[in-house]
Amino acid sequence: MARTMTVIGDRWTVLILRDALRGASRFEDFHARLKCSRAIVADRLSSLVDEGVLSRELYEARPPRYDYRLTEMGRSLGPILMTMGQWAETWRPLADGSKFSRIHKTCGCAFQPVLTCSECGEPVRPGEVELIIPARKTELA
Amino acid sequence: MARTMTVIGDRWTVLILRDALRGASRFEDFHARLKCSRAIVADRLSSLVDEGVLSRELYEARPPRYDYRLTEMGRSLGPILMTMGQWAETWRPLADGSKFSRIHKTCGCAFQPVLTCSECGEPVRPGEVELIIPARKTELA
Repeated sequence: MARTMTVIGDRWTVLILRDALRGASRFEDFHARLKCSRAIVADRLSSLVDEGVLSRELYEARPPRYDYRLTEMGRSLGPILMTMGQWAETWRPLADGSKFSRIHKTCGCAFQPVLTCSECGEPVRPGEVELIIPARKTELA
Repeated sequence: MARTMTVIGDRWTVLILRDALRGASRFEDFHARLKCSRAIVADRLSSLVDEGVLSRELYEARPPRYDYRLTEMGRSLGPILMTMGQWAETWRPLADGSKFSRIHKTCGCAFQPVLTCSECGEPVRPGEVELIIPARKTELA
């Protein structure tokens, strides 16, 4: 978990990832949505490329302009962002009462993500999980 | 998501939450597992109490000693930590090859968490979600 935090451990990074998951791919897209400094956007995009979460491709040579696309590693962060969004909706609702919604494109419904067990298929509830941590290196977990 | 990051946005905080989910409740438990300074542990515990994620209860008067217990809000962070752990196992495996495992106590099996749709019950895969964000305040999402 701490290893994951070194990748997504910043609120701007999380918002960039959220926008990338929604299809944003260019510097100006990310900057327009985040309303933070260009330096912050450039720094976070560069870190995400270094981590292997985004790939960077030149789409215009003069001046040089790049597309930032999620790699498979990056797309795999989707469930984390989804569970984070769900927690915030419940425990840190927006002051104006506005809400996000998620549509599951496959069935067409607005949905809540439910974490289930790969073996029995049932929902996994708090307190039903025993985590077994390797004896060494717990500080790196 | 950014609202969630202001609560869990630090690797030490994540490790404290992980240990709390595993049943740790006392300062010395957290400190012994984290191998960081006492000041860091004290600071993160105090922030988590302020956020409402942990509750603090006196269990010994002289000297004053406290139990830190997850609130319902805190237990609700479980799915986020589980999906973070799963991502790290796949994309940032430990150098010595050691792995975590999770047991679903209800069925007794080692399992992987699978994110499913509350409506159709099917797994939700990357690219199958459309996120609808309220028009205002995207920067606070």
